Amino acid sequence: MRKPGALRAGRTATPDKVSDVDTTSLSGKELAAAVNADTKERAAALAASGAAPRLALVVANDDPASGWYVKSLERAAGRLGIDSTTTNLSVTASAEEIRAALRALGADTAVDAVMLQTPLPAGVTLDEVSPEIPAAKDVDGVSPLSLGLLATGLPGFPPATAQAVVELAKFHDIPLTGRHVAVVGRSNVVGKPLAQLLLAENATVTVCHSRTTDLPAVTSAADVVVAAVGRAGLITGAHVREGAVVIDVGTNEGPDGSIVGDVDADSVRGRAAALSPVPGGVGPVTTALLMRHVLEAAENARG
Amino acid sequence: MRKPGALRAGRTATPDKVSDVDTTSLSGKELAAAVNADTKERAAALAASGAAPRLALVVANDDPASGWYVKSLERAAGRLGIDSTTTNLSVTASAEEIRAALRALGADTAVDAVMLQTPLPAGVTLDEVSPEIPAAKDVDGVSPLSLGLLATGLPGFPPATAQAVVELAKFHDIPLTGRHVAVVGRSNVVGKPLAQLLLAENATVTVCHSRTTDLPAVTSAADVVVAAVGRAGLITGAHVREGAVVIDVGTNEGPDGSIVGDVDADSVRGRAAALSPVPGGVGPVTTALLMRHVLEAAENARG
Repeated sequence: MRKPGALRAGRTATPDKVSDVDTTSLSGKELAAAVNADTKERAAALAASGAAPRLALVVANDDPASGWYVKSLERAAGRLGIDSTTTNLSVTASAEEIRAALRALGADTAVDAVMLQTPLPAGVTLDEVSPEIPAAKDVDGVSPLSLGLLATGLPGFPPATAQAVVELAKFHDIPLTGRHVAVVGRSNVVGKPLAQLLLAENATVTVCHSRTTDLPAVTSAADVVVAAVGRAGLITGAHVREGAVVIDVGTNEGPDGSIVGDVDADSVRGRAAALSPVPGGVGPVTTALLMRHVLEAAENARG
Repeated sequence: MRKPGALRAGRTATPDKVSDVDTTSLSGKELAAAVNADTKERAAALAASGAAPRLALVVANDDPASGWYVKSLERAAGRLGIDSTTTNLSVTASAEEIRAALRALGADTAVDAVMLQTPLPAGVTLDEVSPEIPAAKDVDGVSPLSLGLLATGLPGFPPATAQAVVELAKFHDIPLTGRHVAVVGRSNVVGKPLAQLLLAENATVTVCHSRTTDLPAVTSAADVVVAAVGRAGLITGAHVREGAVVIDVGTNEGPDGSIVGDVDADSVRGRAAALSPVPGGVGPVTTALLMRHVLEAAENARG
């Protein structure tokens, strides 16, 4: 940890660093590009033999960040040769209306993949509507059945963000077997499924959250810290032991409107062995894996 | 840890203890009796208004321990006013034969609850047949859907053994919120679902397993250690910090044919603040909760 006394004495040339660890940036761009190149080629083959993969997006909000994300998914799909249709429901849609929309898309043989955007209308929870997405089309792995298939190791789509963390680590040759990974955040869409994926990689996994006593002590015991809370700058150098790997899943709006992660990069850099940037880390890999899942759903459907 | 040198020098009156902690025994008998009394009363009410709850057991093995367990479940059900039927399939039954049996019981309106015994025939996995048990009848929470419902917090039956650990802790006033719990074992039937239940109780949860590096160091950091591996005596005093709580899920056959846990009780006693006995700890609570689930399935079905 930073030693104020030493700083005041001016005994170091880099007073705002605790050590001289050269922190590697775990970019996700190269991995995303490789995944996308393969997806594009296979999507073209499907299109040539009948029909391109088709993703159906369902939106029931007027949230600007969600709108931006949907546009980015539509563009990503288009670039890869994946068709997409976006169904916009009222921001006051009921759970039953959303369920009906998902049911119709689930039954539509022209649709390979279904993604429901959050946030949902007030009073509607993801868990009460997501069961209407068939597991074979649930490319972001949000339904209870998809999460159960993940927990038991049966075929199914894991949530793309959780999978992106594991794939990013592997791409950068970060070992997981036998390593202690602390996941900060226990959401159904990231923290919990990530714990399952990490266990499948033979990591020892600790899941921390808002009720964790002495978070810095718990995370400092880990070889790898994954921040998936959704709070800007929550994870600082005090949470990370020197030489640990830090993966930042957060995408929060910074004070100036820019996208910032859950990690206070300035205080972690120079201490961690590696840190994934935001943007440009987990994010592009997540989108690439989502599109990969759409392709795989289409390949499975065509048999 | 035990210090051989000190023992040889005869410098202590209690040479086989490291401290004088008075280890409480976390009996499950009183909790099981309380749950059973309530189940019996409610089962009688159902019987009076039409039909007693009915549990269907499916067995496809000739394993003596499984046979003993099935008999104990049949007796427990009978004592509580729950009807049971046991379907014995060949020890060479195929996955499809087992699926067909589960499907028939799932569709039978006279059956409230379905339990498939393990071990299964060689080459058949629980995960490939369990999806045939409808969630509403899956009283031991083994299907992927049941595990996903548990992960998302939706209504469903958790695996009884995992739930028994949490209920035993609560019964003995062991706080879980904010406490660090180490679960040793990552099975689909105990370790993984237990992690979900503990997260729902606001515990910080670490899941350890055969690939964990330095298991004693990881478990010694925890306030509560749950042993769910299935290996006699795996957890010793060296794995437990003084004053921690230890819950033993193991039921292994000891060298003399007796039932022994995963915890080496002699080395943990005097060090842990509390330890659940085997037998008489998690076991009776598990059976009581299974029967409670059968009752609830019947109550829901009569609705």
